[in-house]
Amino acid sequence: MKKNQLNKFSTLKPIQWAYLAGFLDGDGSLSAQIVPRRDYKLGFQIRVSIVFYQHNKRHWYIMKIHKLLSKTGYVRVRNDNMSELTIVEKKAVKEILLGILPYSWAKQSLVKLLLKIIDHLDKVKTRDDFLGVCQLVDKVADFTDSKKRVNTSEKVKEFFHTPVET
Amino acid sequence: MKKNQLNKFSTLKPIQWAYLAGFLDGDGSLSAQIVPRRDYKLGFQIRVSIVFYQHNKRHWYIMKIHKLLSKTGYVRVRNDNMSELTIVEKKAVKEILLGILPYSWAKQSLVKLLLKIIDHLDKVKTRDDFLGVCQLVDKVADFTDSKKRVNTSEKVKEFFHTPVET
Repeated sequence: MKKNQLNKFSTLKPIQWAYLAGFLDGDGSLSAQIVPRRDYKLGFQIRVSIVFYQHNKRHWYIMKIHKLLSKTGYVRVRNDNMSELTIVEKKAVKEILLGILPYSWAKQSLVKLLLKIIDHLDKVKTRDDFLGVCQLVDKVADFTDSKKRVNTSEKVKEFFHTPVET
Repeated sequence: MKKNQLNKFSTLKPIQWAYLAGFLDGDGSLSAQIVPRRDYKLGFQIRVSIVFYQHNKRHWYIMKIHKLLSKTGYVRVRNDNMSELTIVEKKAVKEILLGILPYSWAKQSLVKLLLKIIDHLDKVKTRDDFLGVCQLVDKVADFTDSKKRVNTSEKVKEFFHTPVET
């Protein structure tokens, strides 16, 4: 049990990791975001996510990927006829990133950056540490095709310097 | 020289085929179309194609795939900020389909159908044979997310029954 917890995806073979790397290079989404969370101590959460997409006529396929990844994450059918599998659980995300790293091609620099974010996140002790991670998250935008981000390290910095209302 | 012509992609390893299968399952396009060609004996050409896409900020990546595939096909940057590598040369398409077949998952049925189309195409002797292949091409629409097709087997049939103007 403990061993499985250590590496959830230890049954996956190199050929399967290469396949997943190709899939995620093609259409998958690898990203990191700064999410406002008023109930969090630092006011923000950093979320690193992996998303597999497919037209919902191949919803069975997303279910197969889900099964291959030990049913990690959650599957949903979106309003625009797409099925998606989203994985945000940090430990699982890290293991998947490590699995695809040797085979990832188009997105290898992004994979490395996300792994760095996760590692730094684990070591956060102060607000400055957290800001440092937020600055790494800002860099993710250089690799993804996402629109302009609202929640940047600058916003977190402002929040840290705003006096708390009483 | 002759050996290379027989199998252009013989240097590719299973891990690379698995990667390409994953990529094409994700975002690549595998398709077959009936294209009107007034200069062709039968009035139509059947084109089976493989397309790799990527945002043009990763144009270098499309160039790497192009190199991996012995510079087969042609690369272009589209107006919508996408780079693409298109392969239509029948022999190359067949070899790539055979390469990804064991690893293809979401699109394995489509890969098999396209291979069937190429094989039948090689044996066409009569208009009826050609119509048979066109009917297989009609089936491709079931697997792709393309919009309604204009050139179907029905259109080819009509063309065959239209008296030639003199």
